[in-house]
Amino acid sequence: MLKLDAAGHQAYKRLPSLQMISPVSLGRAHWVVITSCTLMAITVFAAPEQTANAFTRIRSVLHAQQDAWNRGDIDGFMNGYARSASTVFISEDTIRRGWQTVRDRYREKYFSRAKMGTLTFSELEITLSSSDSAVASGRWKLKRANDQPHGRFTLILRRLPEGWRIVYDHTSAAK
Amino acid sequence: MLKLDAAGHQAYKRLPSLQMISPVSLGRAHWVVITSCTLMAITVFAAPEQTANAFTRIRSVLHAQQDAWNRGDIDGFMNGYARSASTVFISEDTIRRGWQTVRDRYREKYFSRAKMGTLTFSELEITLSSSDSAVASGRWKLKRANDQPHGRFTLILRRLPEGWRIVYDHTSAAK
Repeated sequence: MLKLDAAGHQAYKRLPSLQMISPVSLGRAHWVVITSCTLMAITVFAAPEQTANAFTRIRSVLHAQQDAWNRGDIDGFMNGYARSASTVFISEDTIRRGWQTVRDRYREKYFSRAKMGTLTFSELEITLSSSDSAVASGRWKLKRANDQPHGRFTLILRRLPEGWRIVYDHTSAAK
Repeated sequence: MLKLDAAGHQAYKRLPSLQMISPVSLGRAHWVVITSCTLMAITVFAAPEQTANAFTRIRSVLHAQQDAWNRGDIDGFMNGYARSASTVFISEDTIRRGWQTVRDRYREKYFSRAKMGTLTFSELEITLSSSDSAVASGRWKLKRANDQPHGRFTLILRRLPEGWRIVYDHTSAAK
């Protein structure tokens, strides 16, 4: 698990020791070892930058969702979710499966601009589980004329060819 | 992500090709390559069994929680959570941090045997994010004399020296 600390840095694995390799006759196997170690070194040294990128990209996916919501664009908001039949949305005691089903729920529940109100995400915490999987936790709040529903979300995001996308969303609301 | 299919099996990576290694004079580098490949092979072939073990162990952690709850043993139930200051429990719009804080919440909310009722977990789905990290999703239900609260949970579990433990719990309830 790679996790940003308060300053935005994170720990990463140290380069494996290379002491076992003697730099004698560079036969075929030597090149295999050298190539493997070089690839490992690239992977290990590239990790912090990739991790920082992942955090930035995940944040921007959620900011784009917030912006889309606040211009009344549910389909824009839905771009944050993986367009997959296995995308999951959980709230209360209900599990919904599939991007289309999740979209239908949003369109039914927030059928007007007044119902949508103004969305704010806050207290975002992101943890990378691997180079292509992350968990994001945070708060959501809707400001509407007559009420201000609010709660928390736990998202699992995957790095897909089109970018980081939510594959799993568990959202709860204050009573 | 390794995921069990309906039959309880899962896909795993194939052994990397060993064709690049010529079995000539076994110098030091050759041994490095052979050792590395053997370790890779052990890792790769061991993966399915380790994964099956992980699923079994995670299930048994949750079964142990259910059993502890149903004999009125909140501390036994709390054994399922990592005894860490960073253990997280989320419900409604509240985040609680730390094993002790999570325990306090359970002890306040379920202060009597009648309040605890009979707990059932169901519809459990487990996904491994890595060899030592997993997500478990499922339903919870309490059978009590006057009501039957129920809802869903999303758990993140980590494989710790003492076994698989919940490090993050997001629980929601039907209204």
